[in-house]
Amino acid sequence: MKCITVKQPGGTDQLQVSEQPVPEPGSDEILIHVQATAVNRTDILNRENTGGYATTPILGVEVAGVVEKAGANVKVEPGTRVMGLVNGGGYAEYAVMPAGRAMIIPEELTFEEAAAIPEVFLTAYQTLFWLGELKREETVLIHAGGSGVGTAAIQLAKQLRAARVITTAGKAEKLDMTRSLGADVCINYKEEAFDEAVKQVTDHEGVNVILDFIGASYWEKNLNSMAVDGRWVLIGMLGGAMVEHVDLSQLMAKRIHLKGTLLTPRSDAYKAALAQAFSKDALPLFSTGKLKPIVDRVFPLDEIAAAHQHMENNQNIGKIILHV
Amino acid sequence: MKCITVKQPGGTDQLQVSEQPVPEPGSDEILIHVQATAVNRTDILNRENTGGYATTPILGVEVAGVVEKAGANVKVEPGTRVMGLVNGGGYAEYAVMPAGRAMIIPEELTFEEAAAIPEVFLTAYQTLFWLGELKREETVLIHAGGSGVGTAAIQLAKQLRAARVITTAGKAEKLDMTRSLGADVCINYKEEAFDEAVKQVTDHEGVNVILDFIGASYWEKNLNSMAVDGRWVLIGMLGGAMVEHVDLSQLMAKRIHLKGTLLTPRSDAYKAALAQAFSKDALPLFSTGKLKPIVDRVFPLDEIAAAHQHMENNQNIGKIILHV
Repeated sequence: MKCITVKQPGGTDQLQVSEQPVPEPGSDEILIHVQATAVNRTDILNRENTGGYATTPILGVEVAGVVEKAGANVKVEPGTRVMGLVNGGGYAEYAVMPAGRAMIIPEELTFEEAAAIPEVFLTAYQTLFWLGELKREETVLIHAGGSGVGTAAIQLAKQLRAARVITTAGKAEKLDMTRSLGADVCINYKEEAFDEAVKQVTDHEGVNVILDFIGASYWEKNLNSMAVDGRWVLIGMLGGAMVEHVDLSQLMAKRIHLKGTLLTPRSDAYKAALAQAFSKDALPLFSTGKLKPIVDRVFPLDEIAAAHQHMENNQNIGKIILHV
Repeated sequence: MKCITVKQPGGTDQLQVSEQPVPEPGSDEILIHVQATAVNRTDILNRENTGGYATTPILGVEVAGVVEKAGANVKVEPGTRVMGLVNGGGYAEYAVMPAGRAMIIPEELTFEEAAAIPEVFLTAYQTLFWLGELKREETVLIHAGGSGVGTAAIQLAKQLRAARVITTAGKAEKLDMTRSLGADVCINYKEEAFDEAVKQVTDHEGVNVILDFIGASYWEKNLNSMAVDGRWVLIGMLGGAMVEHVDLSQLMAKRIHLKGTLLTPRSDAYKAALAQAFSKDALPLFSTGKLKPIVDRVFPLDEIAAAHQHMENNQNIGKIILHV
């Protein structure tokens, strides 16, 4: 089968279309005939490093397609349209997936739209609700509002919790997108200090939850933006990992819960539970159009280098999809 | 009535025995004829600063005594033996308490023993179970194992969760005490690096929960001691507040939940819920002797300066009680 592998750890020039045997599903897995997959930052990290979680040389952590074959313990009809997270191997014509994390694709969605859902919506769901414990009508600060996870999180916070959503982004088009998805306050972090803006719009109370993809460079401003008993979920370090001075007395005085997380290395059981909770709470809202996958652009699988470059240039708003 | 107030913010020489009117309970409060109260670090901070939570000039945040009078909405018989947290005003012959947080004193206990329970056992209960989410047979690292909260936490972790308990302390007598309370591993932090010891006894897995009273000076070693998905509860800063160079990538990779907390400034509703949960889960174990209040020494109320000095010298193992 056709798939994407890496010659040597490095840049986009190391990506290659190659041939690998079709994988065989284990007894608790399904084999999926992949129709679309998507680009994630973790794929770029895996391309640049030899390390990583994958047990396959093929990149890619999420797919949408049809069930080709089910393992001995799995009851799914071949032909069923499914989407979900895979343990690597997504950039390929066929991929295996632990059956517990397969989610049925709502019939209103195309495969390209479906491939834009798993990683970002599950991450947003997990961080907002499981870790952030966002409650009805609380206020949440979502950084990188135009990113894949950002666009998913804005919608989930609005539709599932009627939350007040404050987002940051650095470009007018991204701010427009966050506004169109329902964000109540859209801050251009290049034009104003976001913590000052947050103080102003929350009457100095701060926000109950922060989704932080940025890390070190936003540390102080995030701390300033947190309400008492706030939950601060750290899911990325686009602004660096090393904070020079951390004042623990502020964490104590505000009784902040700071939670570091990564989705990819979590257990099969965790991902299955997450996919099931999401399927129950959120999937029906895709059928009614209250939630929508945000597709920035679709590339053919062969143009994988251009697709990676597009993400590295921060040009996308929403997901970069690969048509297989 | 006789009580203890502060002349000017400052040292132990500023403590004075004075006369104040007996307070009047509000409709949801009880008036307690105090028999014993106890010294807490928050009292020392309140003595040193004009700030603080107290709406009364009288120090003291916990009492044991008998109900003298109940507010209009409260159903408690006068004469009932109760203990619990007060919003200041504990170092006195009479004190008011929101009725929801009054706990019945098990009949096997004296008032001096009862006064050794509320602050440290409720704090230990809250931090181990509500914040630390300690599960059955998990491993917990309890710093300052000889302190009031430490001695309470060791017992609660063993008796309520059959946890594996690792403690640190700096003196042989304190380590002996932690051992006698059931601690499985007792580390003298002056003689060995506790993170190395933790690695060794946990087979490099680390601990699931840390109760951290120390803060900055233990930061790196605590981080090294944490297991994946560990909960790190920050409840004191005896070792300073300012950490230089915090690497967020380690918090993310281990998916650590770092939770700052303080009990005293929390709401009445929170304290009532905590007292009720503790009364149900833990109080019966005081009657059977599985849990015991650890009383270091009893001072008469008049010797309040000596009692504060005793805590400031770190001479106590367990609670310093004031007989009223």
